Amino acid sequence: MANTKALELLEPQATAAPCCPPLAERPMTSGEAERAAVMFKALGDPVRLRLFSLIASHDGGEACVCDISDVGVSQPTVSHHLKKLKDAGLLTSERRGTWVYYRVEPAVMAAMGQMLGTWR
Amino acid sequence: MANTKALELLEPQATAAPCCPPLAERPMTSGEAERAAVMFKALGDPVRLRLFSLIASHDGGEACVCDISDVGVSQPTVSHHLKKLKDAGLLTSERRGTWVYYRVEPAVMAAMGQMLGTWR
Repeated sequence: MANTKALELLEPQATAAPCCPPLAERPMTSGEAERAAVMFKALGDPVRLRLFSLIASHDGGEACVCDISDVGVSQPTVSHHLKKLKDAGLLTSERRGTWVYYRVEPAVMAAMGQMLGTWR
Repeated sequence: MANTKALELLEPQATAAPCCPPLAERPMTSGEAERAAVMFKALGDPVRLRLFSLIASHDGGEACVCDISDVGVSQPTVSHHLKKLKDAGLLTSERRGTWVYYRVEPAVMAAMGQMLGTWR
């Protein structure tokens, strides 16, 4: 049953609500800052950032753990960092057969870009 | 000598080199990830994010420490977090008379937005 078609039918596992307004629009509320800081913190580590970029730039914005190599850390460390990215809502994952596939969460990335991107 | 005109004549204290390509363009190099992670990490704290948003949204993207209140932490803690944002290249500061004024670094914010903003 595990095939590539299946992925298209699945709902994302982590749905991060759109957050937040552009940083320069108005002072963030405490609640907004709590939510947004989780996402920034997840990207605030060089290894996680490389892993995330590797997955984001891989074919279709999805990569298997088997596609990840050469980031200079052990496989358990890779898994640890992927879990952190997933917990922050930046990645979703799906097991297909032997491997777990990671996919970027476009809505979350768009929301982060909006916070920073409309910079005057 | 301390007047608002003076600020326009000053060079930014911290000039962060443009970094980095959009995250989905290609896997980041180790060096790029090291540099970018510093910026994301600086925003990965709710209090710093609120302070940053407060300054960014203040008149002209600049605020005096005297403009900062109601983020729920003590003045020494505010100063500590502002220093972290400054060390990461996200803010510059200038003393004028009694007060230190903080200003967002637009080039750095634009670079971060570019990393996230061109999301497919």
